[in-house]
Amino acid sequence: MNRILEDVIHKNADTIERITSENTMGYVVADNSTHSVAETSFDNTGALAIVKHLHGVLVSSCQSVVRDLDPTNKLCFLRVATRKFEYLVAPEEDFTITVLQ
Amino acid sequence: MNRILEDVIHKNADTIERITSENTMGYVVADNSTHSVAETSFDNTGALAIVKHLHGVLVSSCQSVVRDLDPTNKLCFLRVATRKFEYLVAPEEDFTITVLQ
Repeated sequence: MNRILEDVIHKNADTIERITSENTMGYVVADNSTHSVAETSFDNTGALAIVKHLHGVLVSSCQSVVRDLDPTNKLCFLRVATRKFEYLVAPEEDFTITVLQ
Repeated sequence: MNRILEDVIHKNADTIERITSENTMGYVVADNSTHSVAETSFDNTGALAIVKHLHGVLVSSCQSVVRDLDPTNKLCFLRVATRKFEYLVAPEEDFTITVLQ
């Protein structure tokens, strides 16, 4: 995990604390360059599955679809509502955050 | 376009009227079996692009990601927030509705 991401996570510890206490099922912060889990409330297998499928497959597919429809547009945020819970995905420059609620 | 879909659209004309009058940029209703545009407020090219990319690529990719993460789970609704606008996608059994706002 790179230093900048480590700093960001450290600075936002309070926010993570608040988010996770409010009826959320958990979260995953992943490093975009290495596709590794930087911080999570899940076990390693669950977190890696989310990074692989949601961050790897879905976010890239979504970004290219948004660009295909309008080359000047850019994906900001993705909400995937399923029967069991909702995935909230925030794809940032260096890292991607997913919260389950 | 099949008869059932035609009936559904006819019955929901008032709802469509209400949705489109509330700050939305437009909508597309597409038949899932034929991937054709059933009803839209966009021109044909724009509507077909949305059906092809959003309904074809993104919704299928999203459905398989949700199933991969949990085989007993199912995609209900998708919100794609972009810098310019938000795509609201409702994938139903026989048809898929997208609203731009």
